[in-house]
Amino acid sequence: MIVVMQEGAPEAQVQAVINRLVGMGFTVHRSTGVSHTVLGGVGPVDDSFDPADFEVMDGVKECHRIVSPYKLANRHFKPGGTILKIRGVEIGGNKVVTMAGPCSVETGEQIECAAQIVANAGAQVIRGGAFKPRSSPYSFQGLGEEGLKIMRRAADHHGLLVVTEVMDQTQIPLLLDYADILQVGARNMQNFNLLRELGRIRKPILLKRGISATIEELLLSAEYILSGGNYEIILCERGIRTFETQTRNTFDVSAFPVLKRLTHLPVIGDPSHGTGKRDYVVPMARAAVAAGADGLIVEVHHDPDHAISDGAQTLRPEQFTEMMRQVRAIARAVGRTA
Amino acid sequence: MIVVMQEGAPEAQVQAVINRLVGMGFTVHRSTGVSHTVLGGVGPVDDSFDPADFEVMDGVKECHRIVSPYKLANRHFKPGGTILKIRGVEIGGNKVVTMAGPCSVETGEQIECAAQIVANAGAQVIRGGAFKPRSSPYSFQGLGEEGLKIMRRAADHHGLLVVTEVMDQTQIPLLLDYADILQVGARNMQNFNLLRELGRIRKPILLKRGISATIEELLLSAEYILSGGNYEIILCERGIRTFETQTRNTFDVSAFPVLKRLTHLPVIGDPSHGTGKRDYVVPMARAAVAAGADGLIVEVHHDPDHAISDGAQTLRPEQFTEMMRQVRAIARAVGRTA
Amino acid sequence: MIVVMQEGAPEAQVQAVINRLVGMGFTVHRSTGVSHTVLGGVGPVDDSFDPADFEVMDGVKECHRIVSPYKLANRHFKPGGTILKIRGVEIGGNKVVTMAGPCSVETGEQIECAAQIVANAGAQVIRGGAFKPRSSPYSFQGLGEEGLKIMRRAADHHGLLVVTEVMDQTQIPLLLDYADILQVGARNMQNFNLLRELGRIRKPILLKRGISATIEELLLSAEYILSGGNYEIILCERGIRTFETQTRNTFDVSAFPVLKRLTHLPVIGDPSHGTGKRDYVVPMARAAVAAGADGLIVEVHHDPDHAISDGAQTLRPEQFTEMMRQVRAIARAVGRTA
Amino acid sequence: MIVVMQEGAPEAQVQAVINRLVGMGFTVHRSTGVSHTVLGGVGPVDDSFDPADFEVMDGVKECHRIVSPYKLANRHFKPGGTILKIRGVEIGGNKVVTMAGPCSVETGEQIECAAQIVANAGAQVIRGGAFKPRSSPYSFQGLGEEGLKIMRRAADHHGLLVVTEVMDQTQIPLLLDYADILQVGARNMQNFNLLRELGRIRKPILLKRGISATIEELLLSAEYILSGGNYEIILCERGIRTFETQTRNTFDVSAFPVLKRLTHLPVIGDPSHGTGKRDYVVPMARAAVAAGADGLIVEVHHDPDHAISDGAQTLRPEQFTEMMRQVRAIARAVGRTA
Repeated sequence: MIVVMQEGAPEAQVQAVINRLVGMGFTVHRSTGVSHTVLGGVGPVDDSFDPADFEVMDGVKECHRIVSPYKLANRHFKPGGTILKIRGVEIGGNKVVTMAGPCSVETGEQIECAAQIVANAGAQVIRGGAFKPRSSPYSFQGLGEEGLKIMRRAADHHGLLVVTEVMDQTQIPLLLDYADILQVGARNMQNFNLLRELGRIRKPILLKRGISATIEELLLSAEYILSGGNYEIILCERGIRTFETQTRNTFDVSAFPVLKRLTHLPVIGDPSHGTGKRDYVVPMARAAVAAGADGLIVEVHHDPDHAISDGAQTLRPEQFTEMMRQVRAIARAVGRTA
Repeated sequence: MIVVMQEGAPEAQVQAVINRLVGMGFTVHRSTGVSHTVLGGVGPVDDSFDPADFEVMDGVKECHRIVSPYKLANRHFKPGGTILKIRGVEIGGNKVVTMAGPCSVETGEQIECAAQIVANAGAQVIRGGAFKPRSSPYSFQGLGEEGLKIMRRAADHHGLLVVTEVMDQTQIPLLLDYADILQVGARNMQNFNLLRELGRIRKPILLKRGISATIEELLLSAEYILSGGNYEIILCERGIRTFETQTRNTFDVSAFPVLKRLTHLPVIGDPSHGTGKRDYVVPMARAAVAAGADGLIVEVHHDPDHAISDGAQTLRPEQFTEMMRQVRAIARAVGRTA
Repeated sequence: MIVVMQEGAPEAQVQAVINRLVGMGFTVHRSTGVSHTVLGGVGPVDDSFDPADFEVMDGVKECHRIVSPYKLANRHFKPGGTILKIRGVEIGGNKVVTMAGPCSVETGEQIECAAQIVANAGAQVIRGGAFKPRSSPYSFQGLGEEGLKIMRRAADHHGLLVVTEVMDQTQIPLLLDYADILQVGARNMQNFNLLRELGRIRKPILLKRGISATIEELLLSAEYILSGGNYEIILCERGIRTFETQTRNTFDVSAFPVLKRLTHLPVIGDPSHGTGKRDYVVPMARAAVAAGADGLIVEVHHDPDHAISDGAQTLRPEQFTEMMRQVRAIARAVGRTA
Repeated sequence: MIVVMQEGAPEAQVQAVINRLVGMGFTVHRSTGVSHTVLGGVGPVDDSFDPADFEVMDGVKECHRIVSPYKLANRHFKPGGTILKIRGVEIGGNKVVTMAGPCSVETGEQIECAAQIVANAGAQVIRGGAFKPRSSPYSFQGLGEEGLKIMRRAADHHGLLVVTEVMDQTQIPLLLDYADILQVGARNMQNFNLLRELGRIRKPILLKRGISATIEELLLSAEYILSGGNYEIILCERGIRTFETQTRNTFDVSAFPVLKRLTHLPVIGDPSHGTGKRDYVVPMARAAVAAGADGLIVEVHHDPDHAISDGAQTLRPEQFTEMMRQVRAIARAVGRTA
């Protein structure tokens, strides 16, 4: 904790800050220069305080936290990186993993068809929503448990893992029966009650970055789950909200090298939601892998023009197969496989 | 629904779009000009489709939805505006309503003290969190039911209403026993399962705008609650995330005139979260009321320097009293009372 | 300058940072705690360095500048605030000043008409563009010197000042002959060659904030002009670019209290460009004054439906008169006149 | 031009819109449905109008422009794409081009050294600033003509082209003598007077996207230059301003596939400014090429720790050589050379 006093702040104000720091358990180092006094608070203290509390004290110019607000998610905690092993599939290792499937589970035939496309192209995980968070209350809300059964059956048939979204904590027991990975959607990245419950289970979590979440906030949300004892987390960049309108979101490709530096957790990219338009999915899948992503999650449907949801950003089967081919070439170029 | 075809799009592509529109129940009007063909799809159809689905069809240049995706929240639904009446307090009427209190419920004495400050200054509602959504898992998480009891007792003692946050659907039954208004926090604005459950109860809801939510998305979230039959909703602008760092968020004051035009629901402002710094709360409270806000929700604490949370943006008692005085002057200047 | 070293950074890395700081003329204070070392560099040194240069050094965790990068624009430089006096009009004093007129100078009759509306309603300055920065090369580009003559004549006729935009440094000599205040548009806020030339003249400058400029960047641009010796600067908030689309820009009303705290320069607001829509101009003019703006600049035209540019955000004459009436009421409520 | 009337708009309002459209030269097609009337205005008219002018008319719900506001920059204008040929170097062809060098020209030795690094690693163009746009007036402002001479000499010695920044129109004649490509910096992307002058010369222009410019605005700025008759333009993505702070800007990698679809002009990427931190430059250079960039422009210096400006984002010589190696591998993976 560093507190910079305003130019000419009187001694009484400096003492008030020192007293508050000491009262919180900090050891205080003081540096006084020609115009400014700087206080460094060091010590093994609880870091659940808010630097803004000091910034509004009289005579304080600014205040900076030294210790990262996340610990278990920090790269220092596991410098070698985390590799998840889920029924034979490694995530975070040398091989770039692909998760693919439709936005929504619609019918058994549709999912069987999707699973075949996904498996044939060499991907490892099928995705699909049984519970759908929709911004309009009048939109299709998902098949529920029936959708989960359909997913499980098709995945087992084709030797795939299942990833599907959990929308609130009451759904967890049901999802544990059917899914291999539970996805937390972007809108739920700061649903802290849900995160806390997910920390109590022992099942891998795919945690998506919120559309306006900073990378630090994403890591703090991961910390919620980790602090409960569930260490199997995959982070996912899926586009942030900016002023640009040519794409639905701005797929923040720099999040890959930044996250690989800050955390030991595997990081994958979702260029379908990241761009919102089918034609941009393949180039952005290439970019993600080129920048260091450990995997991809994309939407594919045997007939996107008739998909119930997200059709515009969903790949056609032949586009998906071509994407897998191109991603393999990029993976090789960066010394990995796919 | 309007579809603009690309320059020189062949007839087969135009027909494909027409067929899809007709298949969805639209009546199609066609305008062909020198360079472009425009298709207008009109009709009483389900509007749960995504214009993006058409934008990716071959030969389509762009596509626009005509009908607003929200109906019950639309100003047209109730042109005169909605006035909530909650135990004698009117929200959305001529009088500007103020809700105030600490960020977190800490102790009985603290809340009794807060209630006295709030009531003496002429405000109508006490706020305070018993369940706290915190971005760090290591921060104080709230007193729970004990906090609710404390709030109810102090409010009744001073003739105030209680507004407090609901973090997930499992908390609803408990909150119904203690609160007069249930607050949905910014991070939960798109927690659709929670919104759906809140549509089933009959208790006023204070719905806060997400930090990166558009005004249209806020209205769609209100629509979730309205479509369940709960018509008592108060909207709240509380700052959006931008690139500016001098304030914690950018308090979007233009949201007040925009929302008053688009919807019949009352709209209040939260300059505490909107700015994140105590010194900016009073001027921004004035600005909100000057721009047309129906009320305010602010943080006040008898000793903000020792508040458990949000101290930096929490007013001191004398600042709050002064804010009330200034807000009354602004209210008079715009023909209202406060 | 404060440098926080990473946890466990070896002594050699700490020394490298110390050496670099000393080499730049800093006196270095060192605080070593259980896990972190913090270096405080203090001293009367040139502050044209970039903190990022230290952040990429081995072993460095983060780095913070202590001294504000602007000096002459800083509130400390003139704590009482600057009041500009331009031919009898005071800007930055108790009275809220209004500048108004059409976006573009079109004809002599139009400007004569505008000047009459502006003067009758009690405003002090006429605005209008003779040189127009247009995002399309096919749009109207302004009348040039003929437009300036028209403005000057109408202003003199009605006892108004003239503010008009300077688009590049070659136009300065011409503008000095006709205008009382030279406006730097949002797109030119970081046209540093232009700013430097404006520092050399002795004429008031109205400096508009860029649509994606931080408040600190706005003050740095003011510093360019001040450092040349021209101290007569009026800052202007005119909306920033965000994700919200209901308004053309997001009018950052909190910029008023923030700027009044950081700088001694007068600050006015432009709710026409800030919102982009006529119906929101009046409420946002009220909000700006309520939040502490020293003045307003708005677009008004005798027939906005036939204005050459910016018609949608231009007030009709009766709306402008009503705005002036309402702004006076708000000014009184905050202890000012208008 | 499409105008959607509000539900139940009276016939007089519809007629007013029709009359205005006809008065502007449009042929109007009318579609009347159960609840809405839609007007389609088609015809060979000047498109320098603002759709917002119609949106504020009584009874109008929304309004959409059909024709792109840029023509010469449109992909349709030259579907095969533009390949610039500059003294033997092709930009926009199969080979990925690299421009590299220091931020500022400091000394003859420094540039000679840089040119050697750049040429040896296989790049084609040397970059370096002789005139520096600096956000602080107290920062180094460049060597001016002396810097240009230094650049030209070193470039000729190593068989490289020279790209350098033009800050205002008065510098053009001087730069024509020394540079092969004139760079328009991000802050000048909407300096329309400069763009217009650059349309009159016959020298390639490197046009950088502003930090808050949309892709459409970038293309409109290109249109300014093209409409003057200068067809040799290279576009450059260099990061946009968002809320994320881990990187200096957010390098918008999706701009590459979007621009390749919308325009025929070559597009390169600047991962140095795009990220602001040396360690992220190489992965983002890979991502840019993987996504379809035609080239790169990066900062390299023989001793970045002592560079006058931008040191933090400047590659060390060995990092640059490694970047070239990796970029070649990615180029091969996407069927190109580098």
